[in-house]
Amino acid sequence: MKKILVVGSVGIDDIETPKGKVERVPGGSAVYFSLAASMFAPVNFVGVAGSDFPQEIIDLMQKRNIDTKGFEIIEDGKTFRWSGRYHDDMDNRDSLLTELNVFENFDPKLPEEYKESEILFLANIRPDLQLKVLEKMGKRPELVISDTMNFWIHSDPVKVANVVRRSDIFIINDSELLLMTGENNFLSAADRILEECSLLKALIVKLGKYGLYATDGKEEFFLPAFPLRQVVDPTGAGDSMAGGFAGYLAKTDDFSFDNIRKACVYGSITASYSVNDFSIEGLKEFDADDIHLEFETFKNLTKF
Amino acid sequence: MKKILVVGSVGIDDIETPKGKVERVPGGSAVYFSLAASMFAPVNFVGVAGSDFPQEIIDLMQKRNIDTKGFEIIEDGKTFRWSGRYHDDMDNRDSLLTELNVFENFDPKLPEEYKESEILFLANIRPDLQLKVLEKMGKRPELVISDTMNFWIHSDPVKVANVVRRSDIFIINDSELLLMTGENNFLSAADRILEECSLLKALIVKLGKYGLYATDGKEEFFLPAFPLRQVVDPTGAGDSMAGGFAGYLAKTDDFSFDNIRKACVYGSITASYSVNDFSIEGLKEFDADDIHLEFETFKNLTKF
Repeated sequence: MKKILVVGSVGIDDIETPKGKVERVPGGSAVYFSLAASMFAPVNFVGVAGSDFPQEIIDLMQKRNIDTKGFEIIEDGKTFRWSGRYHDDMDNRDSLLTELNVFENFDPKLPEEYKESEILFLANIRPDLQLKVLEKMGKRPELVISDTMNFWIHSDPVKVANVVRRSDIFIINDSELLLMTGENNFLSAADRILEECSLLKALIVKLGKYGLYATDGKEEFFLPAFPLRQVVDPTGAGDSMAGGFAGYLAKTDDFSFDNIRKACVYGSITASYSVNDFSIEGLKEFDADDIHLEFETFKNLTKF
Repeated sequence: MKKILVVGSVGIDDIETPKGKVERVPGGSAVYFSLAASMFAPVNFVGVAGSDFPQEIIDLMQKRNIDTKGFEIIEDGKTFRWSGRYHDDMDNRDSLLTELNVFENFDPKLPEEYKESEILFLANIRPDLQLKVLEKMGKRPELVISDTMNFWIHSDPVKVANVVRRSDIFIINDSELLLMTGENNFLSAADRILEECSLLKALIVKLGKYGLYATDGKEEFFLPAFPLRQVVDPTGAGDSMAGGFAGYLAKTDDFSFDNIRKACVYGSITASYSVNDFSIEGLKEFDADDIHLEFETFKNLTKF
């Protein structure tokens, strides 16, 4: 069993999907990730919020094996706010509001003991902050997993590339990967990234409703998405996937490609729970027996 | 071992893709399908062409276990012509020319012995012709597999629905399936079709570069696409997939869902050969040993 350190965003979201609407619900990459990962392994949390962030969520995190010493609350500050509306197909969304608030001056502070975390997850935040966290760690963790988004690929492609070069595992959407490489085929794009980033043990390409593709440059793995008839809220699906993925790797302490395949399955199951309800509600409910059943469903879905 | 009857189009194509350009090459759904299926089982062929259709292709078909008694050649007639240009992503194409020629008055004629074929593949042609073929068969074949395209779903949705209702297996693209059902999720759309078409043993939904999804309403199967770095010409990929699929079912004489899973794998392998070269060139080259290797590649690609 390894410990995971996550550094990422903390938010308060308004979300509208074809299934309904919620206001002022907890969100942010680090929140989704840590709730997902903590089903499998202990998590050290670094993030910032204002005093408007609900204490009950911090209580929930603490109950769930998440160390919140690194969760900085700025008195009289306001938490990062995001509001979005999903289209009917749930694949696309419009951002209606983005207020950085206390996130604007986020300077990740790592409690000394956090630096012993064997697995570091650099959630989707500004790439210069991701690099700063890597420096603050002192010695390099055993496994560095990173994420990003199209906004940073557009605005700071060089720093994003630096983050990927210093990562063992990089998780990205197929459209973002094409944007990053200028390729028009995600397989060739994956080949390119692996050639250029020698530390990478694996590249995980998320294909939305089609599942994911993983490769270490030699072996290749395709996993379909869990066949969900109803998605309530896709917000945080990627972070939940990464949480289940990193959590399983931490729990099993095996970073081989064969175990990365299994971690992808657990990550996908975790994401399927997340999108089953608004905000983090879906991540409150799942238990180990359920996960085992879903694992069998995936086996059955892919056997031939 | 069962016999397959295919009724479909025969064409002469001009094709331009990012990988090159060819003119006056053989094409058409029945041509691709029969060359693919004949790798596995004997095929009876029904189609129409003009006297400009190359004799060497008919010779090739005859050498390949394809009975061409039902291949009608109209003296002084011109073969169906199609010309298309693919976009850089190979997912989309523009049709530059469509000349029906002898295909306009196609009246499928079934040699008496063809009516004994156990498997009927209704390739993508006008749905009223597909229904006519079913009637001409007299007794219902053991297995009816059908295909269609968005053009017919737009222009004659009722007849397309009639074809599907009378089929055991229906093969369709995800975008066409959404168009047919008005759903915005291919899983829910598949559920709808299976509810409404009680004869269906399986619905195969092609997901392009993401692979395919198959279901009988209870079991579900996801298969990724073969990971191809280079696609030369996607024309006929769907017909080649259907050919490998139906060919494998004919060869093994087992229409259970477990065997349909395997047939999907063989269909996908066959399609990967087809897109490897322009027109039907890719279907000329493959042999049984290759196919076995590709089957193992698929196993490795999906294991966890």
